[in-house]
Amino acid sequence: MMKFIRVDMTTLSSTTTDVPEKYAGLGGRALTSNFVNDEVKASCHPLGRNNKLIIAPGLLSGTSAPNSGRISVGAKSPLTGTIKESNSGGSSSQMLAKMGIKALVIEGMPKGDKFYIIKVAMDGVTIEEAPEKILNGCGNYDAIKILNEKYGDHVGMALAGPAGEYRMPSANISFKDPDGNMRSAGRGGLGAVLGSKKVKGIVIDPTGAGNVPIADPEAFQAASKVFAKALLDHPVAGQGLAAYGTDVLVNILNEAGGLPAHNFTAGRIDHNDNISGETMNATISERGGEGKVSHGCHKGCIIRCSQWYADKQGKYITSGFEYETIWGLGADAGIKSLDAIAYIDRAMDDVGVDSIETAVAVATAMEGGLIPWGDGEAVLKIVKGIAKGEPLSRIIAGGTAIVGKVCGLYRVPVVKDQGIPAYDPRAVKGIGLTYATTTMGADHTAGYCISGNILKVGADLDPLKKDGQIEYARAMQIGTAAVDSTGMCLFVYFGIADNPAGYQALIDMINAQYGISLTSADVDELGKSVLKVELEFNRKAGFTNLDDRLPEFMEYEPIAPHNVVWDFTPEEIDEVMKF
Amino acid sequence: MMKFIRVDMTTLSSTTTDVPEKYAGLGGRALTSNFVNDEVKASCHPLGRNNKLIIAPGLLSGTSAPNSGRISVGAKSPLTGTIKESNSGGSSSQMLAKMGIKALVIEGMPKGDKFYIIKVAMDGVTIEEAPEKILNGCGNYDAIKILNEKYGDHVGMALAGPAGEYRMPSANISFKDPDGNMRSAGRGGLGAVLGSKKVKGIVIDPTGAGNVPIADPEAFQAASKVFAKALLDHPVAGQGLAAYGTDVLVNILNEAGGLPAHNFTAGRIDHNDNISGETMNATISERGGEGKVSHGCHKGCIIRCSQWYADKQGKYITSGFEYETIWGLGADAGIKSLDAIAYIDRAMDDVGVDSIETAVAVATAMEGGLIPWGDGEAVLKIVKGIAKGEPLSRIIAGGTAIVGKVCGLYRVPVVKDQGIPAYDPRAVKGIGLTYATTTMGADHTAGYCISGNILKVGADLDPLKKDGQIEYARAMQIGTAAVDSTGMCLFVYFGIADNPAGYQALIDMINAQYGISLTSADVDELGKSVLKVELEFNRKAGFTNLDDRLPEFMEYEPIAPHNVVWDFTPEEIDEVMKF
Repeated sequence: MMKFIRVDMTTLSSTTTDVPEKYAGLGGRALTSNFVNDEVKASCHPLGRNNKLIIAPGLLSGTSAPNSGRISVGAKSPLTGTIKESNSGGSSSQMLAKMGIKALVIEGMPKGDKFYIIKVAMDGVTIEEAPEKILNGCGNYDAIKILNEKYGDHVGMALAGPAGEYRMPSANISFKDPDGNMRSAGRGGLGAVLGSKKVKGIVIDPTGAGNVPIADPEAFQAASKVFAKALLDHPVAGQGLAAYGTDVLVNILNEAGGLPAHNFTAGRIDHNDNISGETMNATISERGGEGKVSHGCHKGCIIRCSQWYADKQGKYITSGFEYETIWGLGADAGIKSLDAIAYIDRAMDDVGVDSIETAVAVATAMEGGLIPWGDGEAVLKIVKGIAKGEPLSRIIAGGTAIVGKVCGLYRVPVVKDQGIPAYDPRAVKGIGLTYATTTMGADHTAGYCISGNILKVGADLDPLKKDGQIEYARAMQIGTAAVDSTGMCLFVYFGIADNPAGYQALIDMINAQYGISLTSADVDELGKSVLKVELEFNRKAGFTNLDDRLPEFMEYEPIAPHNVVWDFTPEEIDEVMKF
Repeated sequence: MMKFIRVDMTTLSSTTTDVPEKYAGLGGRALTSNFVNDEVKASCHPLGRNNKLIIAPGLLSGTSAPNSGRISVGAKSPLTGTIKESNSGGSSSQMLAKMGIKALVIEGMPKGDKFYIIKVAMDGVTIEEAPEKILNGCGNYDAIKILNEKYGDHVGMALAGPAGEYRMPSANISFKDPDGNMRSAGRGGLGAVLGSKKVKGIVIDPTGAGNVPIADPEAFQAASKVFAKALLDHPVAGQGLAAYGTDVLVNILNEAGGLPAHNFTAGRIDHNDNISGETMNATISERGGEGKVSHGCHKGCIIRCSQWYADKQGKYITSGFEYETIWGLGADAGIKSLDAIAYIDRAMDDVGVDSIETAVAVATAMEGGLIPWGDGEAVLKIVKGIAKGEPLSRIIAGGTAIVGKVCGLYRVPVVKDQGIPAYDPRAVKGIGLTYATTTMGADHTAGYCISGNILKVGADLDPLKKDGQIEYARAMQIGTAAVDSTGMCLFVYFGIADNPAGYQALIDMINAQYGISLTSADVDELGKSVLKVELEFNRKAGFTNLDDRLPEFMEYEPIAPHNVVWDFTPEEIDEVMKF
């Protein structure tokens, strides 16, 4: 029987119980979203005593299934005011699953200014005062070192960086990865919720944990093998991502005219070679040293889209150096040096802010005249300033919508106050529908329609045309909600989208683990049910279909080179979530 | 026949037509709200090309009716996202009415960075480039002098200060008063809408204007006399406000335990004598010089609640030095010197920000650690910094909700992102219902329930009890919507609330002017119809009854000295707008 842990920060106490019956079959996002909808007062202030944060491994996490190590975090978002699930790599998901922990809930709020560490071990939960030296601006890189010294290198961690400690709207939660670096539950400001509860970090000590029980080990192994082959055989999941990382998309989106540049005023740049995945690969290879072209964010990852980006001396700068970050700083904000962007990426990880929200906020602030266009040094200084709570840094860490407000802009690329990521919805229509309708605010990972629009994986749609996009955006969001519940990395989709055997293998692994017999229809129903509880929460929180809209300027500002506008009608947009 | 002027800033042209039939019987707020609901796309970005700004005198403006010189400004608000009507004293309302101008609409948006002056004269409208020297941070006091030199002392003006020019969410519109100082359409950021249209100011030259036609001059004069007597005979309207200004309320609210202090953590202060209306009166009287205890914000005002507050040398610092401003800086932010508050008030007028929003934002920023508690010098510097667009100044000029976000606070006193003014809703329950349900975001002037709860004018309710408050808040909002349509100052309410003859005289003046025969039931219907169109706009803009809520912390933080919480249920709150 798995455990369900609740930590009450008001009383600084915890309870461990069996998993409530209704959550028994759920994991990852299915669990976090159901829990938030069940227990969080939808009208609550996200940083007040009535919000709750839940951390849950996916259904397959902790097993030998490839790429199953994602961890989900749920709460009401301080950035968007909606329900939020943000997931991350790192070691915590597998550790918690092996420790038999279905979920860790943090609720309440202590009196006073002290910060705490929640330590989760096989013999129970302890709540300890956080060491003074990891507070008041200490970066995540140092905090991990200090906590490693105190608790041992073997522990997992989830940390609120300075941004989370200060409860900034774009604060992420940083999960320690197998190398002692960080992976982020980036979007939606969940680090601020952790900070509001005065939790500086969660330390997970898996000493004594066993293996995740598998009902039918042989069937599991067989399915796992088919699944792994499906991933490795696919040109994107098995080759492209490992060679060039997600940054492979710079040239692809630039070619497609869907790479938003200069705060979404154009869809193509000339300096794509400065920041492309091909250049990143070449740079890492040339420099040698600690650099690695390919690397996994958690044990058992066989896609290995991450990398270690090193400086000219071969010294590690950052890892998990993603396309969306590089796009935001490199194309949207016009910073033309990959090294400059890498240092900013490191600083963002160190202070603990979502690199997408921050990059979009930076480009918007450049339009607003707060930062010179393309000035990487200025941006680095501002991001570092978040640790000191400097005013301009607070504006940026407030997120894109806040930047738009204080600069008096109407060209503010957000949906539900969350910054629009790296794919222009005018030139890639399907992803625009995801941005508009997802329960989470603009988020490409909620239904990655780039796949069928641009990569031609799983579907073949004309990105400039509306045909078929509504059905596709709906299907992608339903499928994603299911995948986000398994602990699987979203990129497994590439391997199974056009490979029925691969998809069946994913279901077979779940069935073999739990001794059940789900069908693909059941998985579809799971995805739908997750979206439905999320929509229910948002309705209770005051959101309506009128919030499911892209920024108005996209309706009348054509984007080059295709000179297209956002032309879905409100009625068409509202079709997406009808199922 | 009156004129209806439209200025299209996209083409830099204007058209003057007869008043559209449907607007013929409307004035002030009734006209602005109907127009905004009819013509502004509710989903538009408030600072984008599809918002429209409308300026309209009240039904009685320009006549000899006492206190009828208020001007209404309407648009979609950049601060709240709702419909907004903000009204002001000054000379513009009477000038426009005498010029036969029913309304001035500003729509569209020019290309480029140039700012313009719209000049309205009897021979038509001209659109001229704004003088360079009134741009880029020039304060309103200097701008008025420069424009007086250019256009003559006799002109009226509506200005976007530096805050409006930079399109900050708390930017007001400053109307020149008969003394060449300023009166503000303060709330809701309408100055930013003016700025977004690149209109630095509107200059109104009434040369050649006649008198407002009156259908039955004798009846008008007779009614006007009764009305004036009703005002002058009332202890509040005829004496209290003239002697002590609105600041008379410091001691009254402090005694009632409803004076929010230290960012709404208590309802009473010890240093009330430092900032009270009695002290203000004594200080002005002692200092002599340019100081005036009592003064009107427009010609024909007989209540004279304004004053000129002078420094120790008797030199003018500020006028229209209101209770809500003094409360916000003096009690909520703890600045204990009336002189310090006066200099900040002057600076707020000079940069053109709403003094209520700014004061509430300042107190919230003090809780957030951005400004030391009670530090008037720091606040003065920050307010002046708005003219330079400094980051911390931008945060404050972003308004209270923005301050709450960048400081990660849950104790953020706003409704619909507008700062809650000077009366604690836990200790004065009726005003809480107005804050929650008005179409405008937290605003005491939308239904001034202080009257029947504290002043015992027009009603006699226990401020700590729920009994009768729902009906009262509804009636006050309906009545206010009607009064706001007449051009009358809201304070006429004190004179007519308990004086049926005074109220009838107000209706008689309208009837005599227009040759019609409205009854009190018609006036009631007018008020209801105004609220209905405002609610309709807000519904189309995405607001629901779930937005009609006070900040959650007021539900669980009791306020001293009465130790009361906000205890209206959502269902009870939703009753207010049912009529």
